[in-house]
Amino acid sequence: MLSELSGRQSALGRFSFFMKLTVAQLAEKIGAELSGGRDVGISAVEAVDAAGDSDITFVTDDKHRAALEKSGAGAVLVAKRIEGLRIPQLVVENVDAALIEVLSIFAPRLKAPAVGIAPSATVGKNVKIADGVSVGPGAVIDDGARIGDYTVIGSGCKIGHNVNIGKHCRIHHNVVVYHNCDIGNNVIIAANTVIGSMGFGYVLIDGWHKLIPHNGGVVIEDFVEIGANCCVDRAKFGNTIIGEGTKIDNLVQIAHNVVIGKCCLIAGQVGIAGSSKLGDGVVLAGQVGIMDNIEIGSGTVVGAQAGVVHNAGSGQQLVGSPAIDSREKLRLIALQRRLPKFVEQIKQLTARVDKLEAAKDDIK
Amino acid sequence: MLSELSGRQSALGRFSFFMKLTVAQLAEKIGAELSGGRDVGISAVEAVDAAGDSDITFVTDDKHRAALEKSGAGAVLVAKRIEGLRIPQLVVENVDAALIEVLSIFAPRLKAPAVGIAPSATVGKNVKIADGVSVGPGAVIDDGARIGDYTVIGSGCKIGHNVNIGKHCRIHHNVVVYHNCDIGNNVIIAANTVIGSMGFGYVLIDGWHKLIPHNGGVVIEDFVEIGANCCVDRAKFGNTIIGEGTKIDNLVQIAHNVVIGKCCLIAGQVGIAGSSKLGDGVVLAGQVGIMDNIEIGSGTVVGAQAGVVHNAGSGQQLVGSPAIDSREKLRLIALQRRLPKFVEQIKQLTARVDKLEAAKDDIK
Amino acid sequence: MLSELSGRQSALGRFSFFMKLTVAQLAEKIGAELSGGRDVGISAVEAVDAAGDSDITFVTDDKHRAALEKSGAGAVLVAKRIEGLRIPQLVVENVDAALIEVLSIFAPRLKAPAVGIAPSATVGKNVKIADGVSVGPGAVIDDGARIGDYTVIGSGCKIGHNVNIGKHCRIHHNVVVYHNCDIGNNVIIAANTVIGSMGFGYVLIDGWHKLIPHNGGVVIEDFVEIGANCCVDRAKFGNTIIGEGTKIDNLVQIAHNVVIGKCCLIAGQVGIAGSSKLGDGVVLAGQVGIMDNIEIGSGTVVGAQAGVVHNAGSGQQLVGSPAIDSREKLRLIALQRRLPKFVEQIKQLTARVDKLEAAKDDIK
Repeated sequence: MLSELSGRQSALGRFSFFMKLTVAQLAEKIGAELSGGRDVGISAVEAVDAAGDSDITFVTDDKHRAALEKSGAGAVLVAKRIEGLRIPQLVVENVDAALIEVLSIFAPRLKAPAVGIAPSATVGKNVKIADGVSVGPGAVIDDGARIGDYTVIGSGCKIGHNVNIGKHCRIHHNVVVYHNCDIGNNVIIAANTVIGSMGFGYVLIDGWHKLIPHNGGVVIEDFVEIGANCCVDRAKFGNTIIGEGTKIDNLVQIAHNVVIGKCCLIAGQVGIAGSSKLGDGVVLAGQVGIMDNIEIGSGTVVGAQAGVVHNAGSGQQLVGSPAIDSREKLRLIALQRRLPKFVEQIKQLTARVDKLEAAKDDIK
Repeated sequence: MLSELSGRQSALGRFSFFMKLTVAQLAEKIGAELSGGRDVGISAVEAVDAAGDSDITFVTDDKHRAALEKSGAGAVLVAKRIEGLRIPQLVVENVDAALIEVLSIFAPRLKAPAVGIAPSATVGKNVKIADGVSVGPGAVIDDGARIGDYTVIGSGCKIGHNVNIGKHCRIHHNVVVYHNCDIGNNVIIAANTVIGSMGFGYVLIDGWHKLIPHNGGVVIEDFVEIGANCCVDRAKFGNTIIGEGTKIDNLVQIAHNVVIGKCCLIAGQVGIAGSSKLGDGVVLAGQVGIMDNIEIGSGTVVGAQAGVVHNAGSGQQLVGSPAIDSREKLRLIALQRRLPKFVEQIKQLTARVDKLEAAKDDIK
Repeated sequence: MLSELSGRQSALGRFSFFMKLTVAQLAEKIGAELSGGRDVGISAVEAVDAAGDSDITFVTDDKHRAALEKSGAGAVLVAKRIEGLRIPQLVVENVDAALIEVLSIFAPRLKAPAVGIAPSATVGKNVKIADGVSVGPGAVIDDGARIGDYTVIGSGCKIGHNVNIGKHCRIHHNVVVYHNCDIGNNVIIAANTVIGSMGFGYVLIDGWHKLIPHNGGVVIEDFVEIGANCCVDRAKFGNTIIGEGTKIDNLVQIAHNVVIGKCCLIAGQVGIAGSSKLGDGVVLAGQVGIMDNIEIGSGTVVGAQAGVVHNAGSGQQLVGSPAIDSREKLRLIALQRRLPKFVEQIKQLTARVDKLEAAKDDIK
């Protein structure tokens, strides 16, 4: 199996161009102190247990350090030189930051998207397309849209009326942005995501659910990154807002009029219901649900699958559905685990009281 | 930040055409009784805390009435005249219904989709396209499909063989409808939703999962509205059915052979497994899961993140996973919260019984 | 209502070609032993309670056998001849396997996708397209991609640089496959699914979340089937791997570096976080969440909505969030249900001890 996979990968290799550097060259590029041999050739990054002799790996804690002894890696990124290691070590201040640099160096080189508008794209009236923009095949850009410098609009994207997209954005294939949405600079939106569709707001009139018109828009601030197959609904009025630097994983639902602060992390399959507000730096783990009209303070972390139904302050740790403080939850789980013991204790107490009562009767 | 956002919005405003009316004109249009000045100009609807002097806002309960005193709104929709308010009041019987009217009046005016078939669309044989239909760029309509009067097929949509779509539908961009599905009149399907893909039905034969062919279809009745990035699977035989007037939010999964009644509300990220049946007016809150082959009676409401694993009658309120009656759940949660008290009580009882036993021994 | 639906279906029937066979012909085709009349005409498969006189139905257990007495079906597939049944019986060894055969025989006959590259498709340089391949309208195939014999690439698909797709695959409409992904033979991917987008891996540097470049790819082995609107993220390094014969439902999230074994079943809306590993034959029910870096042994079954936060061995049955052994969970649920009884028992014990203490005081 593994040999088959590597066969396939090397087949791919025939078409791709991969960078190859000596460890000495690599150390110089990333400003690392080199310890050990200088001439080992490196062409990729790999996990410590999968790395081969032309891969560089990395260790961030002692757990991996042990695995490193058995690793076939050609070199390693470390924060502190490890005594007695036979492979070259690139010592850096911040392994995570260095890893990003090294991964960027060895990233597969792909042909850049062609600048200009593909012949099969459809562009409306009063559209303003800045310098260096790429619009892919089959994309549709409606009247009044504006696309900033060096932004890439993938093939099959639909950009609605009066949408404003900033500079250096990457809007991947088949993304749909409805009318009047506003996307900042350096934003990435992955494939098949939908921005600005109607919110789910209905009023029951004469036994029928009537859709509330959603006149508002969506504002996505600078450096926001949104995964694939997500939905960000437009506001009833005002805007649904995703704050600067916030990152959103795949299959996430952001309902109408939600306001998300700066630098939040929102994991896969999270759902945030209408008009809820998140502060800055909030972290929502996978499959979390936030009820409508909830406020969550800055820095609060919500555990996977939790369901938040009450407002939460800053710096909280919430888990469970309905979500409560994580320490309280742990206590409750521990108590539940002790339920069988309680049963036993009650039984024993009952027996002892039975006996005491019998003894009392004897005394009488 | 806020000033930057409004800057962006006003930039958008340059391209959009927005309606502007005096409160007197607006009151006449929606049949409201006007109390206060007649000449204030209104061009949008806003929430009470965000409204400016050219916005109309609305209050539905006393909570917002307090906020209204501090609001910068130019006018307000109310159900009953509020004494001593300085801004004009439009008094209506049903604030929700009036709000929908007012939002429709101030909805951004967008260019209607062009009637006709875009040159880049692909249309098969024996396709019947009625009057006033719009087929967007890059759409593909397979042999034998029929599209009713004034329906809009967005760009990038794929409409499969023999699909029947009724009148006045809006099928948004990149929606995929597989073969032999049947969509009624006045149906809205938001972007990137998939209707009629194979259900997830496998049989284990000789150690391999073999797909059960799904010969059935999907029937979506009149006035159904489906959000973005949803999946409605086709039936093994017969049809997966979504009843008249039912509304479905984003990222919802409707499995093969599910039958949903009329006027249900199904919130974001709900999943309904194969062959389950919902009555009329059922409400499923966000992230609810319904097991396969379950029946849920009309008017039953299921709380967010609940998991329904047993049939449920009509008019129930279910919460939790596994879902139980909401009152029973509240009782259980209250009891769980009292667990630490139980521990204490058992401890005290034990001490008291210890003492009694010791005393008994003394007596002996 | 029902009459209207069947009206719609018969309208569809005008355009479709449906197979019609006598039960004798059908029995011969599938190698069944026929009991009862030979000449009944069959044109479709239906559930026992919905079948009409030109439908064949099937029974797999005694529950349906009762319903069969009341069924209007024209014939029935059975594993063992039922005495005294008035309709023809096709007796087969394996009803499930025979059902698949019969469904295939009566599947709606659709025009096969046209072999060749649609004029509106865009094909890059060094692309290798094998014999019998169909590339739909508006599809985009980037440089260096290779498509194997008789594979169908749906309209609106985007196939990235250097992607390798095997033989006899069906990549449905609007699927996006990012660069350097590797798809085996006989793979099916349903509409709007995204393969190979960036994983959700960030490092906090100077207060900003920096994306970790994802240099790895995705490997999808032979006979894998993936539903609609799914996301399979590419690896940081190495590959995200989906093992041979594994089947995945709709709206599923497979994060970066996840490794899934052979012949697993993954139901709708499941989320598997980064670097987790599943053995062979693992079953995840709907809306399950798997934490990152978790290992789950072969044959383990995880119940709907469970959240797995610890490694699990082979052949386990896990339920709940956090997930525990299903028997332990059942015990805990039973104990929780007895909490009201505990309250009562503690109350009674307290009263009895009160009395004993009072009596003791009397004695003194």
